[in-house]
Amino acid sequence: MTQSFTHLNEKGEANMVDVTEKAVTQRIATAEGFVHMESATLAMIAQGEHKKGDVISVARIAGIQAAKKCSDLIPLCHPLMLTKVTIEFELDTAQQKVRVLATCKLAGQTGVEMEALTAVSVACLTLFDMCKAVDKSMTIEGIKVLNKSGGKSGDWQR
Amino acid sequence: MTQSFTHLNEKGEANMVDVTEKAVTQRIATAEGFVHMESATLAMIAQGEHKKGDVISVARIAGIQAAKKCSDLIPLCHPLMLTKVTIEFELDTAQQKVRVLATCKLAGQTGVEMEALTAVSVACLTLFDMCKAVDKSMTIEGIKVLNKSGGKSGDWQR
Amino acid sequence: MTQSFTHLNEKGEANMVDVTEKAVTQRIATAEGFVHMESATLAMIAQGEHKKGDVISVARIAGIQAAKKCSDLIPLCHPLMLTKVTIEFELDTAQQKVRVLATCKLAGQTGVEMEALTAVSVACLTLFDMCKAVDKSMTIEGIKVLNKSGGKSGDWQR
Amino acid sequence: MTQSFTHLNEKGEANMVDVTEKAVTQRIATAEGFVHMESATLAMIAQGEHKKGDVISVARIAGIQAAKKCSDLIPLCHPLMLTKVTIEFELDTAQQKVRVLATCKLAGQTGVEMEALTAVSVACLTLFDMCKAVDKSMTIEGIKVLNKSGGKSGDWQR
Amino acid sequence: MTQSFTHLNEKGEANMVDVTEKAVTQRIATAEGFVHMESATLAMIAQGEHKKGDVISVARIAGIQAAKKCSDLIPLCHPLMLTKVTIEFELDTAQQKVRVLATCKLAGQTGVEMEALTAVSVACLTLFDMCKAVDKSMTIEGIKVLNKSGGKSGDWQR
Amino acid sequence: MTQSFTHLNEKGEANMVDVTEKAVTQRIATAEGFVHMESATLAMIAQGEHKKGDVISVARIAGIQAAKKCSDLIPLCHPLMLTKVTIEFELDTAQQKVRVLATCKLAGQTGVEMEALTAVSVACLTLFDMCKAVDKSMTIEGIKVLNKSGGKSGDWQR
Repeated sequence: MTQSFTHLNEKGEANMVDVTEKAVTQRIATAEGFVHMESATLAMIAQGEHKKGDVISVARIAGIQAAKKCSDLIPLCHPLMLTKVTIEFELDTAQQKVRVLATCKLAGQTGVEMEALTAVSVACLTLFDMCKAVDKSMTIEGIKVLNKSGGKSGDWQR
Repeated sequence: MTQSFTHLNEKGEANMVDVTEKAVTQRIATAEGFVHMESATLAMIAQGEHKKGDVISVARIAGIQAAKKCSDLIPLCHPLMLTKVTIEFELDTAQQKVRVLATCKLAGQTGVEMEALTAVSVACLTLFDMCKAVDKSMTIEGIKVLNKSGGKSGDWQR
Repeated sequence: MTQSFTHLNEKGEANMVDVTEKAVTQRIATAEGFVHMESATLAMIAQGEHKKGDVISVARIAGIQAAKKCSDLIPLCHPLMLTKVTIEFELDTAQQKVRVLATCKLAGQTGVEMEALTAVSVACLTLFDMCKAVDKSMTIEGIKVLNKSGGKSGDWQR
Repeated sequence: MTQSFTHLNEKGEANMVDVTEKAVTQRIATAEGFVHMESATLAMIAQGEHKKGDVISVARIAGIQAAKKCSDLIPLCHPLMLTKVTIEFELDTAQQKVRVLATCKLAGQTGVEMEALTAVSVACLTLFDMCKAVDKSMTIEGIKVLNKSGGKSGDWQR
Repeated sequence: MTQSFTHLNEKGEANMVDVTEKAVTQRIATAEGFVHMESATLAMIAQGEHKKGDVISVARIAGIQAAKKCSDLIPLCHPLMLTKVTIEFELDTAQQKVRVLATCKLAGQTGVEMEALTAVSVACLTLFDMCKAVDKSMTIEGIKVLNKSGGKSGDWQR
Repeated sequence: MTQSFTHLNEKGEANMVDVTEKAVTQRIATAEGFVHMESATLAMIAQGEHKKGDVISVARIAGIQAAKKCSDLIPLCHPLMLTKVTIEFELDTAQQKVRVLATCKLAGQTGVEMEALTAVSVACLTLFDMCKAVDKSMTIEGIKVLNKSGGKSGDWQR
């Protein structure tokens, strides 16, 4: 097998890989995740969303700020300057879950899927935090990359 | 229904709730999460673990540091001073996944389940980052609190 | 005059003063500030507040998070663990301004007026940021401590 | 009225706007603010300035570091790489105030007025912190953009 | 030999050790370090110190802020709330070096020698940064703990 | 003498210098440092390195993350986006020390020697932290730039 973890050198040591020579191209990545909860909890969020929306608003801001902190959280991520971050929330009452969808974008030398995944993760954690007083048994599920474009490896879609 | 989101006041506005009067008790929380991946990816991690362990080492450090940053990431979390953070990893080749288990502890006025969940989430994201060059389709699943103890609400177990 | 800047020693050098021996007492501080703007800008915020409230929500979260970062921003502030932060907004259409009011609280060895002032300042800056596309001439005015309680110096009220 | 808050989408949700396609141009912004204080307090700063200058030095450093943290403090600000930050202080004994003037500069896709305003705000807060032991009634006034240049919207002057 | 690295468990895995049960005692630690430089460089700092002191002032502030960031920089350090940080500088023209001396203090469950060492290191790096335009060959030497007190292990002196 | 500290203006005030007009060139810098310790301590690290390597792994990650935080730690450093960071460790049993060697790289407008020095310093501090339970008398020595390339001032080698 010729594949290898790019973050590890031949001695297995972790380092931040050299991207100096990589071309600057436009990069986009979208990721999603889900917070599963009891129906009553979801109903409380839904009620708030129509009226004042603070649960969703707080989670959105937390996710956006986390995207910007990605290279501080994930040790071998390169620092980069996102030019766009958006986070959407969909309340699925049938399946008792909230879907979190994040899109990150920039013109740069590395992909932005880790930024999108970090935004999703922290938005999910923030939803959890705001609802935990009424529902401790929530679970965060299905965090994954949906698609990414740009860079030498080209477009990728789940 | 008399339950309500404690982070929202009667007008639905999000604020950091007052815990000044809460008793200082010993708090422990344990959370888990899973990174599902292809067998070949898991085998590469396993191989490294026996030799040098850098993939797991990096994810562990990232998770520990994230636990300490919880109140910076989750907007309405209180700042607190963790007195213990441990993160364990279990490679499950049968089910093609890595289990991440985090335990946080302190003597304080608020629970530490968000710290444990944050440690798990960022450790999972770091595993993802280090393996994504060989496996883009990984998913992070089942992030949840396993048990928490301490505080007025008493012990809770999933 | 016997008064002196407590942050400077006898040689005029800035250092973080020793509060190790100070008693742990309950501390509360309230601060306010104002963003003056054109009537049309204020009307746009007001409209949003009734519908979805995101401008105010974002500013509130930014202010709360800034209170927690106070010792990172103000070099000689002691790190401390706030047990409560609340931020309120009042839209004053007559005087074309938004009032921002922040309250911080903890049981500790130092006052929390810098935390309240920082929360107000960053909430005002965030309002500015969100409205600047339609109104570049806004000004932030009247940032000040309204009252503080706790500690050896006792209660103080403007 | 066709104006709208650029940070909000058509549903009123806050997101970090897409600047990927915006041209990279040289951007400069200057902002100012004032700390009003009692004459005796101002005299103490002035005395220090001539001798050792630590009050002003600390406030200057705090303002410069805050400019670099702008995108961490203001949720919807884009991360960017400032190529210049300068902060000047003018002591106005007649009007009992210190003027803080900050200039930020870079070649980039977004304006830098929020960075300049953040630098001014945190420099003012730091002055407040260092003088509060002798003067609790200080107020921070008149924080505003003086001028900005660069970008599609062109130059703007108060 | 029965000694072991406390940060590693029996499997050699790094974790943040449990200090929950440790007594809260007053802790003090002092550390020092040196920046060796050419005589001309030292003369330039000395000249500034007498006049305006900004090189030393900036290094002092950087060191104090770094002490507060210690648990963010050193992965297995516990977060803690320093109640005192002071940094002193001594210019030694005979030996062509600047001595940096930092003292940290708190009432807590862990020692503060890492905070003092971090303050010294970052103050030295800041001196380096400010002088590097005129002297690239400086070296930072002799960073060490001078003494620490408090805690179960008792007082220690070099 | 016509040399001057670039970070200070003619009045001796510290500011972040203007690099807006400087050309974007490829910059590389390498720095080193040493942690001197007792033979027994070094033997314990060596033993771990062959088996599990966590002491070295943790120090490497800490150094890489510190390189990314350089502009947050050193007040007048420009923010920049490193495209490569590697850290190597050499155990020198004869001289009872660990050598830490860091290389930073980017295409940008300022040199990256401060980032390399910061990476070395924090990696050394982390080694210290992990070994201090068995050896309090360690010293950190010889932190210096080995070589730098790129920029108007050209290549420099110790």
